[in-house]
Amino acid sequence: MNDVTPDDGADGPVVVRLHSSCTAQEVSTGEYYHATVNGVVDYGIFVDISEHVSGLVHESTFDGGESFDVGDEIVVHLTEVRENGDLSFELADLDDYETVERAHSYERTAAAIVGQRVGDTVHVEGEVVQIKQTGGPTIFRVRDDTSAVPCTAFEEAGVRAHPDVEVGDIVHVKGDVEEREGTYQIEVGELDVLTDEDATDIARRLDAALADQAEPVDVDPLVDWPALEQLLPDLRDVARTLRRAVLEGRPIRMRHHADGDGMCASVPVQYALTKFIEDAHQDDDAPRHLLRRLPSKAPYYEMEDATRDLNFALEDRARHGQKLPLLLMLDNGSTAEDTPAYKTLDHYDIPIVVVDHHHPDPEAVDPLVDEHVNPYLHGEDYRITTGMLCVELARMLYPGLTDELEHVPAVAGLSDRSKARAMTDYLELAREAGYDETFLQQISEALDYEAYMLRYDPGTDLINDVLNVGGDEERHRDLVPFLAERADEDVDEQLDAAMPHVEHERVANGANLYRIDVENHAHRFTYPAPGKTTGEIHDRKVEETGEPVITIGYGPDFAVLRSDGVRLDIPVMVEELNEELPGAGVSGGGHLVVGSIRFVPGMREAVLDALIEKMAEAELDEELRSAPTR
Amino acid sequence: MNDVTPDDGADGPVVVRLHSSCTAQEVSTGEYYHATVNGVVDYGIFVDISEHVSGLVHESTFDGGESFDVGDEIVVHLTEVRENGDLSFELADLDDYETVERAHSYERTAAAIVGQRVGDTVHVEGEVVQIKQTGGPTIFRVRDDTSAVPCTAFEEAGVRAHPDVEVGDIVHVKGDVEEREGTYQIEVGELDVLTDEDATDIARRLDAALADQAEPVDVDPLVDWPALEQLLPDLRDVARTLRRAVLEGRPIRMRHHADGDGMCASVPVQYALTKFIEDAHQDDDAPRHLLRRLPSKAPYYEMEDATRDLNFALEDRARHGQKLPLLLMLDNGSTAEDTPAYKTLDHYDIPIVVVDHHHPDPEAVDPLVDEHVNPYLHGEDYRITTGMLCVELARMLYPGLTDELEHVPAVAGLSDRSKARAMTDYLELAREAGYDETFLQQISEALDYEAYMLRYDPGTDLINDVLNVGGDEERHRDLVPFLAERADEDVDEQLDAAMPHVEHERVANGANLYRIDVENHAHRFTYPAPGKTTGEIHDRKVEETGEPVITIGYGPDFAVLRSDGVRLDIPVMVEELNEELPGAGVSGGGHLVVGSIRFVPGMREAVLDALIEKMAEAELDEELRSAPTR
Amino acid sequence: MNDVTPDDGADGPVVVRLHSSCTAQEVSTGEYYHATVNGVVDYGIFVDISEHVSGLVHESTFDGGESFDVGDEIVVHLTEVRENGDLSFELADLDDYETVERAHSYERTAAAIVGQRVGDTVHVEGEVVQIKQTGGPTIFRVRDDTSAVPCTAFEEAGVRAHPDVEVGDIVHVKGDVEEREGTYQIEVGELDVLTDEDATDIARRLDAALADQAEPVDVDPLVDWPALEQLLPDLRDVARTLRRAVLEGRPIRMRHHADGDGMCASVPVQYALTKFIEDAHQDDDAPRHLLRRLPSKAPYYEMEDATRDLNFALEDRARHGQKLPLLLMLDNGSTAEDTPAYKTLDHYDIPIVVVDHHHPDPEAVDPLVDEHVNPYLHGEDYRITTGMLCVELARMLYPGLTDELEHVPAVAGLSDRSKARAMTDYLELAREAGYDETFLQQISEALDYEAYMLRYDPGTDLINDVLNVGGDEERHRDLVPFLAERADEDVDEQLDAAMPHVEHERVANGANLYRIDVENHAHRFTYPAPGKTTGEIHDRKVEETGEPVITIGYGPDFAVLRSDGVRLDIPVMVEELNEELPGAGVSGGGHLVVGSIRFVPGMREAVLDALIEKMAEAELDEELRSAPTR
Repeated sequence: MNDVTPDDGADGPVVVRLHSSCTAQEVSTGEYYHATVNGVVDYGIFVDISEHVSGLVHESTFDGGESFDVGDEIVVHLTEVRENGDLSFELADLDDYETVERAHSYERTAAAIVGQRVGDTVHVEGEVVQIKQTGGPTIFRVRDDTSAVPCTAFEEAGVRAHPDVEVGDIVHVKGDVEEREGTYQIEVGELDVLTDEDATDIARRLDAALADQAEPVDVDPLVDWPALEQLLPDLRDVARTLRRAVLEGRPIRMRHHADGDGMCASVPVQYALTKFIEDAHQDDDAPRHLLRRLPSKAPYYEMEDATRDLNFALEDRARHGQKLPLLLMLDNGSTAEDTPAYKTLDHYDIPIVVVDHHHPDPEAVDPLVDEHVNPYLHGEDYRITTGMLCVELARMLYPGLTDELEHVPAVAGLSDRSKARAMTDYLELAREAGYDETFLQQISEALDYEAYMLRYDPGTDLINDVLNVGGDEERHRDLVPFLAERADEDVDEQLDAAMPHVEHERVANGANLYRIDVENHAHRFTYPAPGKTTGEIHDRKVEETGEPVITIGYGPDFAVLRSDGVRLDIPVMVEELNEELPGAGVSGGGHLVVGSIRFVPGMREAVLDALIEKMAEAELDEELRSAPTR
Repeated sequence: MNDVTPDDGADGPVVVRLHSSCTAQEVSTGEYYHATVNGVVDYGIFVDISEHVSGLVHESTFDGGESFDVGDEIVVHLTEVRENGDLSFELADLDDYETVERAHSYERTAAAIVGQRVGDTVHVEGEVVQIKQTGGPTIFRVRDDTSAVPCTAFEEAGVRAHPDVEVGDIVHVKGDVEEREGTYQIEVGELDVLTDEDATDIARRLDAALADQAEPVDVDPLVDWPALEQLLPDLRDVARTLRRAVLEGRPIRMRHHADGDGMCASVPVQYALTKFIEDAHQDDDAPRHLLRRLPSKAPYYEMEDATRDLNFALEDRARHGQKLPLLLMLDNGSTAEDTPAYKTLDHYDIPIVVVDHHHPDPEAVDPLVDEHVNPYLHGEDYRITTGMLCVELARMLYPGLTDELEHVPAVAGLSDRSKARAMTDYLELAREAGYDETFLQQISEALDYEAYMLRYDPGTDLINDVLNVGGDEERHRDLVPFLAERADEDVDEQLDAAMPHVEHERVANGANLYRIDVENHAHRFTYPAPGKTTGEIHDRKVEETGEPVITIGYGPDFAVLRSDGVRLDIPVMVEELNEELPGAGVSGGGHLVVGSIRFVPGMREAVLDALIEKMAEAELDEELRSAPTR
Repeated sequence: MNDVTPDDGADGPVVVRLHSSCTAQEVSTGEYYHATVNGVVDYGIFVDISEHVSGLVHESTFDGGESFDVGDEIVVHLTEVRENGDLSFELADLDDYETVERAHSYERTAAAIVGQRVGDTVHVEGEVVQIKQTGGPTIFRVRDDTSAVPCTAFEEAGVRAHPDVEVGDIVHVKGDVEEREGTYQIEVGELDVLTDEDATDIARRLDAALADQAEPVDVDPLVDWPALEQLLPDLRDVARTLRRAVLEGRPIRMRHHADGDGMCASVPVQYALTKFIEDAHQDDDAPRHLLRRLPSKAPYYEMEDATRDLNFALEDRARHGQKLPLLLMLDNGSTAEDTPAYKTLDHYDIPIVVVDHHHPDPEAVDPLVDEHVNPYLHGEDYRITTGMLCVELARMLYPGLTDELEHVPAVAGLSDRSKARAMTDYLELAREAGYDETFLQQISEALDYEAYMLRYDPGTDLINDVLNVGGDEERHRDLVPFLAERADEDVDEQLDAAMPHVEHERVANGANLYRIDVENHAHRFTYPAPGKTTGEIHDRKVEETGEPVITIGYGPDFAVLRSDGVRLDIPVMVEELNEELPGAGVSGGGHLVVGSIRFVPGMREAVLDALIEKMAEAELDEELRSAPTR
């Protein structure tokens, strides 16, 4: 405590005038304080002795007769600090006294400016956001309302200093500022975990700063489209959550559907987050630790993937002292099949955010996730693709990306065959940015081809060139036609083998039914995979016949279904098949015109026969055209 | 040599009085020494001139008539240092001489206390345990009888200093102690490889210290069980070998069966070794380099795995200058099928230690391994599970783990369906620690489920939570029922598909034989895998019938076998099948009631028919109940 | 500019005498210079005012009547520096003038000797070969004609300093030499990108130095063999290209066929390049970043592999500022099937070098690669194996390797069953080096076995021991017979299962045709794989019958073909099969006596029947014996 005694010659008791920044740690029982009345109740008065320190003067301690108003300046005597931290004062009626000023015991330095104080001893207050044990000192990363600063503490080589301090604690650090290879750090002298009021104050301050910094960029949507408009508030919430995660030093693990729309969704968000992370952490290397994009082949979040993600996150926490990540599901994640994986992560309090346009099951999903954006939740459907949503999200995450992303919603729409009216606007927007529809279609095919070739690898630099988001424009123009042509050739080769084995029958409702054994009559383990092969066959048959078409591509334990002009309610069919065929183990789903099912291999013939019977009775509907496959 | 001449005015020849710490490097032919007789033989007398330096005075050099007793103080003349290092003295009969004291040329500093000598020049003697080439200096890690210390030597950037020095050499290092980021190191001034007597002395000193430090913790077994008691000396040997490996800086590579018992065996050992490594190396990061736990799906050590392990070890040696590892096989490793892999490692002198409870083939295995612990080698059987053994091993490896491991043997026993009488005690022990049997069973199921989900990844943090060894207690209580329930649901779904396709027949010996094509009538590539699926079907049929039951779950090239109440000698059956069916390529094995075989797909029907014929004639035995599957 | 005025008392205008090292940056319009005539043309004279600065004195500026000869010393006046950098002078006719000397504004320090200038400010000129952003400074690696030196520039922690400077720029760096952990670096004061003449000069200097340093080692081939002799100039070009890549800091990514010959080709090249990289970069760690050997299972460069390689290269560029790599294809890469992958890399200007001995398609390949060495391009054939070629290549890459590689061509030849006459010489060479033919054969088998066990891992240390190239001789002698025996045992076990199911028929041309379903009558996923299994069966049948033999090993979608004494033109057969069987999707190829084809599973029977029909009509040819399988 830094008392300054004014030279006033008085010889009565000492009355302390606390600096407004003083905390409860700087008062002692028995001392007198200058106080201001801030509340009058019938059992006494409340007084402030600093901005942070208050207490009660019980009316039983009054001499009698006094009457107080808020704002009165009085002198009080601290008689007791209770266990819960409450202070009890008595009114002090002193004739003569000496006043001393007491400054706050330290002057706080903002983390953002420690670089200006090299060589000085400084005080920083903030939250511990990372703890990393090196072979030498322990490094505590402390974030205040301005920035984060590494604080190194040394106990013994490789031994954790301050073992009681944990990530999330609010601390006061006193230490010397050092420069090391151009970065600044504080060599810790004292490191105290704050509690009670002090901690609450600081946490509130950090929170306010965070809320401010996390606020999304205010942008108008790329096209004027009321359907999309409804989803913008949800997307703004997601943007806020993601920006906040970045500011808090929480890693983001992005899982997305490994197809064209999934790429158009995840790549712009990855691009925007990378830029925001670099800015917020002032470190070009930070995105490598804090952001990971992972393509998923399955149409839902598999337990194996969740287990692997969790395991990876726990190792990162152990090795690098990182927080557990936020999971961001893109173009995937809205269905009940995702929930076992979500529940696993829930045991570790890992936040989950979903942006998807596949038919959602909000009852199953919503209780487990922090945000869930899906057009079906607003009465819309898959025609608003995830890529369209995520381009808006990316623009909310980081300013100035509009020009680089204008062509992406069109690619997303073409990839998922969106029949949205806004497609006209998106195509026009892309055309103005220099992309004609043929070329956009080629981008879509190139993305699909590269998604296959990369398998589980995000291939960020390569995909950035293909989609031309943060990539090389010239290479993009060069690479896309080449890859699209490769994809075409491979499709042609596959169809050369498959087409002669496509079987045709006209079923009861008049539709053409085509079936092909894609395991036996197509090349295996090459592009295109069975789902795409089936889709290409279907498209050719639709064009060829101009009539209602159903196509089934089946393997030993799966079937891919496509329809044009016939209404297939696949979830209902799956349910019926399971009832009719015990032991067939049928699962799967889809929309009205596209889907896929799985079954046990030994029941394949029975399942296909029953399925075709159902399809033969399905209702014809000329409105229905193919939608995104997965 | 630091001679100190006492000011005694004498002018005869100089006689050296060596300090007791002097070594043979500090004597020279032609000098006179004060000596003490330490042995009298008929061809002369042996004398000590320091604690470390001795030699013979041949009787031919005596003037005659002298007679010596052990302890006599005499003066000798060094006439020859032979090639083998032996010293030959003559008796010196000097009237007048001057005595000089010769101190040991340096004062040795214990590696453990170099941190107290920052800035000083010190001498350290010890063994080189690691050599690492950095882009700058070469780092030699030198271990003496107290600790290990890094010694940095610089020749040219990135160029190996002292290229002749190798890991394992005994050296004398002279250099300045520096502190760098809180760790201490010696900047090498001189680095000499010691040989002969000096090296032998130091090696002996290190060995004695090592033997001492490697001594296992003295613990009483968790339960009073004579069968287990017999194996404790073997386990103590294993504990000693592992502790010694840690102290010598040798990495440990742990391979274990990826099932419940294998986890209960390996996780406590990993936990204990991690703590011991941290202590011994004073570095929280050391376990990451020195210990690796790897689950194996196969029931033996495959050549592919051994090749990969060896390759990994050689790379680590090249990149980090590490010793080649010790291989620790847990709940795997006792059979002849393991030997080709062992032989491969043997070419690189990699030590192998096995703790297993599967039927062993000691004749094949023992010549190739350093330690082999198996209950069958003591007339016991699989009922003493590897998990039970390894909990005792872990307690010998590191003190104070008892409380954290008391529930593990019960989980191990339940996982492998141990019918040991001691199970009662283990269950009681777990109950007292707060784990009822239902919950223990859930842990076992959760472990099995996570082993499937993690595949080849150890998933250490996750598994620690599931087993609650070094994990988070609260999360453990939360996670286990969730995972057990998930596993149950998946089993139910699998059995829904499979059960309608189980075929039944009553065979000649009256047993119920059930068979199921698990490839065609179960979901593929999902939990539970074929072995577990077969086991679950079997268990339900046993419960349903209450009679002797045999179950066969088969795929294209394998069959899983289970029996209750029927004695199947699977190894004999395999032998007979191979004789009867040329070209079937049958292999595999198991116990009396559980096993699995492989064959070439084209011979499946023939193999199954012949197998069932044999089973139909197998002897009924009510005592036999199912044992651990693998 | 550092002008030094000699004390000559003159008072006329100043004439500058430039130091010969001065550049165009050190001249100014309006100044007078001492010049030397270096060319006389009818429109004027060309003059040099320093080694690097020249210009024209137009005849229109002459007073008249003057006549000049090359070598004349005159004074000129600089009137104009044109946009393109050309200098225009006038002749200066001065009676009285003062001469000042102007030194080059800095004295260049060779990168190779900055270590001798610690603490001094130096100037280095060279090319930026790597830019790496650290958490602190940015590190520019600058190479001049002597060596490369890291230059650290600091803008703000983790922020790219000099963001305009790119890899490939020619720069002038001024800064202080520091020593850090034994390596030298320049702390950048100034860093300028040079353009125009200065840059051209330096680039020319670097190029000349590089060309010099890249020149291959001059070696005589190991054996006297005219067929091989023809290919040496091609190999020398490859050696030059590879050495140059190393000197330029370009990583090399080596893809090779994962069989015996492929190993014998790639391991010596890896060994030689490793040594050359260590020398050139003075860093034992550099090979880890700059060289990668990757085995390929497929007989051509698959798009998936190319995509993965490209993705990896782009990541390395982003993370470590490395150049994109050079791709070196060994024992693979000569066929049209490789071209889609090559085209992908071409979009990123990745250079490609091929050394192969499989039947090439130069029309498809040559336009896409920088070098293509193949014996067929010189009228030779597969008998000159890639291993034989690459041993010569390795010897051109690094001096003094002859003794260590003498046995390798013999192993390569045995692995690929080369019938070259030079095999006698190679075997004799190996015999003199201590390897008898039996042992060489064992090395070949051990390599094949380890290639299987390692799958996609290069396993460098292990393979070096097996082939004894940079390995441990004693271990080599020990390991090879062990692995060869393991391989033999596995082959025997496989053939025990398969042999009883080999079907025989004598076909029209009198040859014995053997066929085996290797998927159904051999163990799967174990050594030996189907191709090797088929080959072993074939070899046994050839030996057994002593007659013409064709063997077909088939699986669900492939067939491996082998012949002795029958001429199979496999590419023609593939073409015919595709015409005759629409929807069979047949692909593949091979030589006259060995090959493999793929087809869609559902057409297997039709394909095999048609294939056998063709084989039955194939021409017998006693000369033909089996060649390398792949």
